[in-house]
Amino acid sequence: MLKMHDFITELYPICRSITGDGFRTTMRAIQQHIPLQLHEVPSGTPVFDWTVPKEWNIRDAWVKAPDGRKIIDFQQHNLHVVNYSVPVHEHLSLADLKPHLFTNPDYPDTIPYRTSYYKETWGFCLPHNQLLELEEGDYEVYIDSTLEDGSLTYGEYILPGETDEEVLISCHSCHPSLVNDNLSGIAVATSLAQRLAQQVRRRYTYRFVFIPGTIGSITWLALHEEVAPRIRHGLVITCVGDPGGVTYKKSRRDTAEIDRAVQQILCDSGEPHKIIDFFPYGYDERQYCSPGFNLPVGAFMRSQHGQFPEYHTSADNLDFVQQPYLEDSLEKLLAVIDVLETNCRYVNQNPKCEPQLGKRGLYGAIGGQSDKVIDQMAILWVLNFADGEHDLLDIAQRSGMRYELIRNAAEILAEHDLLKLRSR
Amino acid sequence: MLKMHDFITELYPICRSITGDGFRTTMRAIQQHIPLQLHEVPSGTPVFDWTVPKEWNIRDAWVKAPDGRKIIDFQQHNLHVVNYSVPVHEHLSLADLKPHLFTNPDYPDTIPYRTSYYKETWGFCLPHNQLLELEEGDYEVYIDSTLEDGSLTYGEYILPGETDEEVLISCHSCHPSLVNDNLSGIAVATSLAQRLAQQVRRRYTYRFVFIPGTIGSITWLALHEEVAPRIRHGLVITCVGDPGGVTYKKSRRDTAEIDRAVQQILCDSGEPHKIIDFFPYGYDERQYCSPGFNLPVGAFMRSQHGQFPEYHTSADNLDFVQQPYLEDSLEKLLAVIDVLETNCRYVNQNPKCEPQLGKRGLYGAIGGQSDKVIDQMAILWVLNFADGEHDLLDIAQRSGMRYELIRNAAEILAEHDLLKLRSR
Amino acid sequence: MLKMHDFITELYPICRSITGDGFRTTMRAIQQHIPLQLHEVPSGTPVFDWTVPKEWNIRDAWVKAPDGRKIIDFQQHNLHVVNYSVPVHEHLSLADLKPHLFTNPDYPDTIPYRTSYYKETWGFCLPHNQLLELEEGDYEVYIDSTLEDGSLTYGEYILPGETDEEVLISCHSCHPSLVNDNLSGIAVATSLAQRLAQQVRRRYTYRFVFIPGTIGSITWLALHEEVAPRIRHGLVITCVGDPGGVTYKKSRRDTAEIDRAVQQILCDSGEPHKIIDFFPYGYDERQYCSPGFNLPVGAFMRSQHGQFPEYHTSADNLDFVQQPYLEDSLEKLLAVIDVLETNCRYVNQNPKCEPQLGKRGLYGAIGGQSDKVIDQMAILWVLNFADGEHDLLDIAQRSGMRYELIRNAAEILAEHDLLKLRSR
Repeated sequence: MLKMHDFITELYPICRSITGDGFRTTMRAIQQHIPLQLHEVPSGTPVFDWTVPKEWNIRDAWVKAPDGRKIIDFQQHNLHVVNYSVPVHEHLSLADLKPHLFTNPDYPDTIPYRTSYYKETWGFCLPHNQLLELEEGDYEVYIDSTLEDGSLTYGEYILPGETDEEVLISCHSCHPSLVNDNLSGIAVATSLAQRLAQQVRRRYTYRFVFIPGTIGSITWLALHEEVAPRIRHGLVITCVGDPGGVTYKKSRRDTAEIDRAVQQILCDSGEPHKIIDFFPYGYDERQYCSPGFNLPVGAFMRSQHGQFPEYHTSADNLDFVQQPYLEDSLEKLLAVIDVLETNCRYVNQNPKCEPQLGKRGLYGAIGGQSDKVIDQMAILWVLNFADGEHDLLDIAQRSGMRYELIRNAAEILAEHDLLKLRSR
Repeated sequence: MLKMHDFITELYPICRSITGDGFRTTMRAIQQHIPLQLHEVPSGTPVFDWTVPKEWNIRDAWVKAPDGRKIIDFQQHNLHVVNYSVPVHEHLSLADLKPHLFTNPDYPDTIPYRTSYYKETWGFCLPHNQLLELEEGDYEVYIDSTLEDGSLTYGEYILPGETDEEVLISCHSCHPSLVNDNLSGIAVATSLAQRLAQQVRRRYTYRFVFIPGTIGSITWLALHEEVAPRIRHGLVITCVGDPGGVTYKKSRRDTAEIDRAVQQILCDSGEPHKIIDFFPYGYDERQYCSPGFNLPVGAFMRSQHGQFPEYHTSADNLDFVQQPYLEDSLEKLLAVIDVLETNCRYVNQNPKCEPQLGKRGLYGAIGGQSDKVIDQMAILWVLNFADGEHDLLDIAQRSGMRYELIRNAAEILAEHDLLKLRSR
Repeated sequence: MLKMHDFITELYPICRSITGDGFRTTMRAIQQHIPLQLHEVPSGTPVFDWTVPKEWNIRDAWVKAPDGRKIIDFQQHNLHVVNYSVPVHEHLSLADLKPHLFTNPDYPDTIPYRTSYYKETWGFCLPHNQLLELEEGDYEVYIDSTLEDGSLTYGEYILPGETDEEVLISCHSCHPSLVNDNLSGIAVATSLAQRLAQQVRRRYTYRFVFIPGTIGSITWLALHEEVAPRIRHGLVITCVGDPGGVTYKKSRRDTAEIDRAVQQILCDSGEPHKIIDFFPYGYDERQYCSPGFNLPVGAFMRSQHGQFPEYHTSADNLDFVQQPYLEDSLEKLLAVIDVLETNCRYVNQNPKCEPQLGKRGLYGAIGGQSDKVIDQMAILWVLNFADGEHDLLDIAQRSGMRYELIRNAAEILAEHDLLKLRSR
């Protein structure tokens, strides 16, 4: 199986953007692990209210100080260039250069991440403390980039299931050397795909999309309008490798099955976590949850975007993200998918009074011992609420018991013909 | 514009009651500021389960002590007479007088306010400490009043709007020399009418009614049953000049638009305030919210009736109520009305994915800087929830943003044809 | 009337079980106080998924130590024998005996209560401290019991009312010398029946069932499927004599009228109490609330089963349960039944504005005195919410007033033709 942190380390140096060879190289690296299909959408393609932009590629960029030293160098860190900068080669005074320099005074030793996809300009990013030391004089700036008609690339991997109802796993893959946001998402989503591919049975069809943020989901939705109604559940995965507890941002529907499933698994984990309501900012859930689609898609994160100091700076690096947190995210996502796969409505076939569990070996033989009957309580909860109205998640939630216990109880009861599947 | 505290000072000495010349004089004073129409409803007119009572007028009243001194004098303070006292001129012992004397031992230096509208009797009110000092002997009592067939007076001012849907502003105006309850309401309602009259456009027709408490709203409703269904929103205004924070008593409907609007404005103010559920006691909202009408009428107050020590005593005077509090009440009411005027449901015309805000100049050009996008957040909230189901108040409430920001965002989006009005 | 603690003292020595003469003797003792009808259901009768078991009777049982002393003696305490033990007369080593001995190490000085209704075996119960002192050697065990075809007995008392809509009072009566669980329930239910029989008018038909736990309610339901739809309200009564505050376990419906009624009465009492959600474990409510019946049946207890240390041990004895707590439980149950009997929906006959209460003598004549109008507030609440939608319980709940005040107000208003009964 994929070694997630190693994979991230391999992808880290690549200068990704919303289009271009950095993105393609990344997709090809994923193809080493899962049979991802690559799609190219030509620049200029109208996608709803937007247009697929020109393709951007960059080879080099630097700023030389008056004394000729390279003081900002794309080869050192690709965050140094404002992503989508147009080519430039000029000499400027410090005063004329400054409007093209971006820093983050709050974290003065880090390089901030800046983009300018839809306004043609150029710029450099650097630590604020470095900016303060720049002296007057003649600066030489050089950006060897191209911004030309080309295409937007995205990768898609469809893992067929028993039905054509789909679970969408969406992962923006357009950030340059930033790890938690979003190489962690790429690694976890790739691992998740590997793991699901190994499963013998899948009730749902799983669709993994690796796309550039915003324009990528818009493009994908524009080209797949007919798929949208089949999407039963979805997750945007990002920021899944840092030490923070899990944050789940609910879908716009608020009580969709995916929302209930993630909450149940986080609650069952007994670990600190945060559930937040949908809001129309963040990642591609903004597009999936736009009112014309309103898909049941939530966002699965550890620390929330914008809420950790390393966010969108050079400090979001290979040290910040660690293998155990990646694995923990993966395991929780697998548990969520296990809920989606198994959750259903059963109908008690013996609804009038309890069935006699004892004669089926489902009851401790010596009664009266204690109220601490754990699995047996799960059996009683399932029997009582398997009325065709409550699904297993409802029963887990109402009983306060772990989903796994409820599901196991339901399966045992179904084996004994005490339950019949009503609907999924 | 009306100087509210000066206006209150002018009205303060008048002995108002539910009928009679004191009420009429007050209405004529209001007519100096807004073109109020006066209506007279004859005594004996049946109004639902009630009958318009006889008209009461009073010229003088006093009690003389055994030594001949006037110890209680209507000319000193009109609260000294039980409102609606029948005429009397008698000599009595202290023991026979006492059943006609009313005090408030809890606030022993104030004159309490008492009425006897529906039982013919007479009485005097005085500070409890004064009562304790009365000596045995022969007392002379004199009340020069009349209680005869006449009429009940009310004032009405209709400010037409674009539709015949109405906003009702109701103000009981029957209290004698009491300021917070209710001269403050008269002054603020009059100012509110002036301010609304100046507005170029009004979506709603505004109806201001200045009525005696209880019997006045009953009479008005009995005579305007056909108007009731057109009342979309309403407020009873009283106790709006004291230093306390605003108290809003919700309509019986609990979640009427007026209830949501007032709560939003109070919440947006960031100032301490209190929201209380409807209960069938208080002011004229009792009648508007009776089950046969169930109008969306709440009560807007600062300190709540019965909850401040000055309530219904001579301490509810010109010092207790101050101009800045009157103005604050007025501004908040104007803000509430602004919500009513502007709240509506929009439908996003580009519901599939977000529209490209940047090409319309609605988005900061350099992305990735921060999550602190304030007005832009309002734009995103409106776009996402402008689904024809949520009105602007819903969106403000759900987003946690100020109504003004949400409304501004909606207006900008509508100007760019990204929203279309669905319904008000 | 029944002296409840004396009655319990009389019943205490009897060795009850789910079938047999102990149960019959108990029923005959109840017949001394209410005209209970006894029913016998033959062993082998199929009742839903179950079968009525063989009848168990016991005369004697003991264990003799190697020195010949009776160290465990059924005649001393009937908890010493595992209920439903098959006959045995054997000599065994301590090692072979031990699997047949049951103790509760958590409460080492008490005899625990154990049963084995559906697996044929035998056993003895003893204090854990006694077990620790047993020495190696030859033990003689003797149980003089029979387990043969016979019948399951239950008692039923139907107290007819004006309608055939029923209130079910269910009381399991199968526990041997255990007092709170469940002789307290037997005594309180019997007293309740006596008290209700004395009432001149009963809107509902009351059905008291004294049954063995689980198999009894299953049997009763199997034989009375046609009665179930007529059951409007029901309570399982047990554990009602201990010093703890009342615990009410809601029906599976969660907001059934019985649930609202009990909560109202407990809230009105001003005493500490606990309301717990339905869960599918506990007493016969498990059967009444099985999804095929889903009857509005809650469980009325003081300390909850399994939550007090005396539970299912010999410490649940005649000292643990006291007369004042029995009486308090009875009074609260009578208050609950009073709610069920009187709760209804009224329609205000004067729904437009308040009626003039004064002319009907329903209003203090001197107005303006205070906001502290208590009964009058009840009158206003009832008038305002007697819209045919809200029942008296709703109005009590919404007003925060005691049910009694609301009901009294409604009755006065109905006498004055201001209210008309809509429906019960």
